[in-house]
Amino acid sequence: MQQSERLRLGEIVDALGGELHGDAGQAVEGLAPLETATSRQLSFLSNPRYRAQLSVSRAGCVIVAPGVRDEALARGAAIVTDDPYLYFARVTRLWKERTAPPPGPRIHPSAVVHDEAWVDPTARIGALCVVERGARIGAGTELKARVFIGENCVVGERCVFHPGAVIGADGFGFAPRQGEWEKIEQLGAVRIGNDVEVGANTCIDRGALADTLIEDGVKLDNLIQIGHNVRIGRHTAMAGCAAVAGSANIGAYCTIGGRAGILGHLTVADRVHISAGSYVTRSIHKPGQYTGFFPIDDNAAWEKNAATLKQLYALRERVKALEKK
Amino acid sequence: MQQSERLRLGEIVDALGGELHGDAGQAVEGLAPLETATSRQLSFLSNPRYRAQLSVSRAGCVIVAPGVRDEALARGAAIVTDDPYLYFARVTRLWKERTAPPPGPRIHPSAVVHDEAWVDPTARIGALCVVERGARIGAGTELKARVFIGENCVVGERCVFHPGAVIGADGFGFAPRQGEWEKIEQLGAVRIGNDVEVGANTCIDRGALADTLIEDGVKLDNLIQIGHNVRIGRHTAMAGCAAVAGSANIGAYCTIGGRAGILGHLTVADRVHISAGSYVTRSIHKPGQYTGFFPIDDNAAWEKNAATLKQLYALRERVKALEKK
Amino acid sequence: MQQSERLRLGEIVDALGGELHGDAGQAVEGLAPLETATSRQLSFLSNPRYRAQLSVSRAGCVIVAPGVRDEALARGAAIVTDDPYLYFARVTRLWKERTAPPPGPRIHPSAVVHDEAWVDPTARIGALCVVERGARIGAGTELKARVFIGENCVVGERCVFHPGAVIGADGFGFAPRQGEWEKIEQLGAVRIGNDVEVGANTCIDRGALADTLIEDGVKLDNLIQIGHNVRIGRHTAMAGCAAVAGSANIGAYCTIGGRAGILGHLTVADRVHISAGSYVTRSIHKPGQYTGFFPIDDNAAWEKNAATLKQLYALRERVKALEKK
Repeated sequence: MQQSERLRLGEIVDALGGELHGDAGQAVEGLAPLETATSRQLSFLSNPRYRAQLSVSRAGCVIVAPGVRDEALARGAAIVTDDPYLYFARVTRLWKERTAPPPGPRIHPSAVVHDEAWVDPTARIGALCVVERGARIGAGTELKARVFIGENCVVGERCVFHPGAVIGADGFGFAPRQGEWEKIEQLGAVRIGNDVEVGANTCIDRGALADTLIEDGVKLDNLIQIGHNVRIGRHTAMAGCAAVAGSANIGAYCTIGGRAGILGHLTVADRVHISAGSYVTRSIHKPGQYTGFFPIDDNAAWEKNAATLKQLYALRERVKALEKK
Repeated sequence: MQQSERLRLGEIVDALGGELHGDAGQAVEGLAPLETATSRQLSFLSNPRYRAQLSVSRAGCVIVAPGVRDEALARGAAIVTDDPYLYFARVTRLWKERTAPPPGPRIHPSAVVHDEAWVDPTARIGALCVVERGARIGAGTELKARVFIGENCVVGERCVFHPGAVIGADGFGFAPRQGEWEKIEQLGAVRIGNDVEVGANTCIDRGALADTLIEDGVKLDNLIQIGHNVRIGRHTAMAGCAAVAGSANIGAYCTIGGRAGILGHLTVADRVHISAGSYVTRSIHKPGQYTGFFPIDDNAAWEKNAATLKQLYALRERVKALEKK
Repeated sequence: MQQSERLRLGEIVDALGGELHGDAGQAVEGLAPLETATSRQLSFLSNPRYRAQLSVSRAGCVIVAPGVRDEALARGAAIVTDDPYLYFARVTRLWKERTAPPPGPRIHPSAVVHDEAWVDPTARIGALCVVERGARIGAGTELKARVFIGENCVVGERCVFHPGAVIGADGFGFAPRQGEWEKIEQLGAVRIGNDVEVGANTCIDRGALADTLIEDGVKLDNLIQIGHNVRIGRHTAMAGCAAVAGSANIGAYCTIGGRAGILGHLTVADRVHISAGSYVTRSIHKPGQYTGFFPIDDNAAWEKNAATLKQLYALRERVKALEKK
């Protein structure tokens, strides 16, 4: 961790609010989990179940909810706030601002930005990025190094794209002809709303005819595949290596676990949560948590159960026959 | 969709054939699905099951098969052709040609092409690509931006590589020595046939001794991993995030679904279809459709069934015991 | 295979040891498997089970273990050594050295290396790489083309990074606020030990507060995702498309199969082996082999068994009821 900057507790509370118990002049030199924080670091307790960690932590100050105020004060300085985890997130941003290097050039000289692309004067384009003809990059958006934004794709405001992200490669569209494939040119683009974050090496394909749509506030982790003409509703978050096939329509406020997959042409309602490693093969119309993966086991046990699984239907018939007797 | 160009129906039929019913001078301004097409757009009906959509579509003209000619004509202009989906694919290509920007430089000045690489004069190398020593790029092949073609890899004609594709990184080969790993240098290359398309951020590793082989007409979607010494037979197509481990030998005319995996050193026959999310762990010698994933369910139901699954073998033994009585 | 260089058997044994039976002046022009090797190529037998291949191989010389010396000598030249596979690995490296082109510039002119990054004079930085401020690259380490090493990330000695690898993108950290997400700035970095190899398009995220840790000798294949604050113990190897979620703690000397996943905040002991395609959802404290995926079957059989699987718990209850009678 590179947190050479020092922040006084008073500065933090001035910037972010919250109720400070302790010396406003006390400086902290970094953030750390309760277990490892030193007396010069700031920590936080977000889950009251772990309150026992409070008394043994050596943190110089802790961010806590009102319900554990007394325990926190018994051990030293504290900032009391309704949502300690959110407060912690904001402290990380305060820290980032304080420790950020002087910004480099607005458009890195090694980036390849087409003359007919439009980049907002407050957007930043990192080293070795490519922004193609007709693409539009909104205010405050940041392309880290090595990002690709394809022809005519449109990106909103305050978005972040991590290295290797590819926005607007062709969707996977081919018409069969006697067992061979003829290309369907992908004439649509990608439209991305505001406050979207796209992880490293994640791909979002352009639409075949209409556009692929990523709505406001969507967060995509690394190595995710989004097929052509997918729509992802606002504030939905997807963890690493998830994959969404073409024309799937995913609602708002969903969470999609790591390595989860969603088949094409399906609809997933708002507020659906898909467990990591699960594969969605039918539309889901009701909010809730959905799961489907084979539980891990020691290899010998798995082998026995997997072999039986291949005869499961037959087993059910045998049970039926027994029941009839 | 950026389809500012207008095409007259007569121009389309002149270029692509088919039987025009309607005014050859009528212009269309774009392509769209039946549901959303306006009176200035062209649409198509590929699956006769959806013929009911014809009468309610507002499309200016529809591409249909002979079997639905009457219904199509009852509503307005139509192009009748034996394979409407294939015809649609060809219209997208016609549109692409008409709306394509003037081509940039043949080899983008930001690309890094080794002096001892060979690039056909009709091939195109996009921004920030790398083509290493001894690599060969065939006629009409296009490397979009940020593609990597490694040392001695050979690419055929009319291929397309999307951004971030990596052809010819080292295969994953190490010899164990007392729990540690010693590198096996990967001395082979990658050989790619004609008319191959490779998706964004897809990786095809070079062979250990002999070459990795991708035959004519293979289509690979995004974020696919092809291990060293794999062979993929002609016209096989693989959807996003599929993975093929080293030395697997995959036949021709196969389809491999998204996120499917194929273990190393296996053989898959021609015309095998692997469902999305399935994991091939043994050779498959007969054409057909193969599947293996845990069906998704609401989380509570999954938990109960998954727990029981870990005792499935025991359950079978209990059924056996009951049967003996 | 581009193996134009010739090596005499005597040179090989001088460099690598082993007991040569045959003419030290005999030249070999390449390496090949027993099945395909010609009389001008060198081959090896690592698994004594395949000793029957020895007598029919046309290889000019074979590398064998002492146990099959007699069979090997009966057919011609041989190098006898305790571990033929390891010896073979070392021959590939000897070959690589002999056939390697003259090295290009130490830091390719197209690479973007920050003034405040530190690159050891013996490290090599390939075309179109990015090395950000405060990053450190150790002695003998090689970044192939298009590698990204983020701010403050530290890489040890003799490491290899393949094209498209992204080290030090932000971890996926957001605090929920009324269904929306607020970014948690990722203030940690990535620390990578010595002799680590990282595959093409693989991503290793920077830590949220503390650093993500990759210990000495770890080998990562292509398209792998390593979340923030993960620790991977020394000499652990992971095959392609594996994914490890945030804060997982993986031991030393493990092997993780292709497309395997490991949930966040888990502990995996030393010498644990996870089968390809399996999903680790709980900590594993004992060495051994662990597996969990749905076995593939022809689609019709799978459909029947998968449908029954959704009623498995009910089936068990029915068996219980039968047993009670």
